[in-house]
Amino acid sequence: MATYPKSLKDLIECFKKLPSIGEKSAERMAFATMNMDEGEIEFFAQSLLNVKNNIKKCQKCGNLTEAEYCEICNDNSRNSQILCVVESSKNVILFEKIGSYTGRYHVLDGLISPLDGITPNDINIKKLYERVEKEEIKEIIVAVKPSIEGETTALYISKMFENSPILVSKIAHGVPLGTDMEYIDSLTLEMALEDRKKISEEK
Amino acid sequence: MATYPKSLKDLIECFKKLPSIGEKSAERMAFATMNMDEGEIEFFAQSLLNVKNNIKKCQKCGNLTEAEYCEICNDNSRNSQILCVVESSKNVILFEKIGSYTGRYHVLDGLISPLDGITPNDINIKKLYERVEKEEIKEIIVAVKPSIEGETTALYISKMFENSPILVSKIAHGVPLGTDMEYIDSLTLEMALEDRKKISEEK
Repeated sequence: MATYPKSLKDLIECFKKLPSIGEKSAERMAFATMNMDEGEIEFFAQSLLNVKNNIKKCQKCGNLTEAEYCEICNDNSRNSQILCVVESSKNVILFEKIGSYTGRYHVLDGLISPLDGITPNDINIKKLYERVEKEEIKEIIVAVKPSIEGETTALYISKMFENSPILVSKIAHGVPLGTDMEYIDSLTLEMALEDRKKISEEK
Repeated sequence: MATYPKSLKDLIECFKKLPSIGEKSAERMAFATMNMDEGEIEFFAQSLLNVKNNIKKCQKCGNLTEAEYCEICNDNSRNSQILCVVESSKNVILFEKIGSYTGRYHVLDGLISPLDGITPNDINIKKLYERVEKEEIKEIIVAVKPSIEGETTALYISKMFENSPILVSKIAHGVPLGTDMEYIDSLTLEMALEDRKKISEEK
């Protein structure tokens, strides 16, 4: 049985290592790269190497950066009193896209998950404690997903600062905008009900 | 608004150029490459360059190869009297996966499409004519998709060899195995009905 030439097979195998890319998609991608011009391909190859060589974690918050400290930690116009604790650098960008959050971040790089053997020591949580001691932080907003791991992590962080004057809060969980109520699972509905907000005037 | 570091942004842009990859998938892929080890990344980058530099078209059939002639054209054990005409090198591999076809191929690298301005001169069809004159070909199997372009191309090829002793055939179109009849479109059903096969004994 004849197959693809070796170079092409190699590239297909590389694409298959990417998340949720199977045989067919990898083939499509490899064929697409053959139609790119030489400059594009060289840039692609160089970008792969650059990401591996240049990207590291911010010494302060754990966010991705090419320097010692990330863009956000270097930005003096940001509010240093609020810290938004997120699971990954991807989530930092999500919050940045809102545009209205002007505080700083702390990237945990994971969530506590005893079932998977991930303890607080395995994620970037010790540095959070150190930061709070050094910096003048007044509020920590835990902004992780509402899963068992997320809730465990949020609880751990709130216990960590139990006896300190720092306010630990958690983003609201509830019904997202633009969704039909019938598609919302009952756990979310329960949370939305529990966290209900008063809309009538004070009586 | 803070964004990803430049190296990461560049790589995300590269992934976005691949077919059916949007912002989110490209981000997922770029993050996945960060978790690959150095050797893997270097191999990935090198594979991209290799595909661009080493892959060319077989001088004979138009299939992809790293040499002058492709694996199949070089294989003397294959039947040189039958030629399977396909749209792309991808389709060669599809037929090779069946395992039972032992003839050779001719890759058109496109289909005739007057609406898109693709004439017979724009695809690898002239070489097909030359091959038939030089090689001892007895049958040409047109194995292209059953679209307007596919049918036009099949018709063109059959007209081309109208006055020659060569048999031009076309793969069967009909109901694929394992499908529920109700999901088959009526054009396919019509073709399946037209191309019906006798199963009773000769009377």
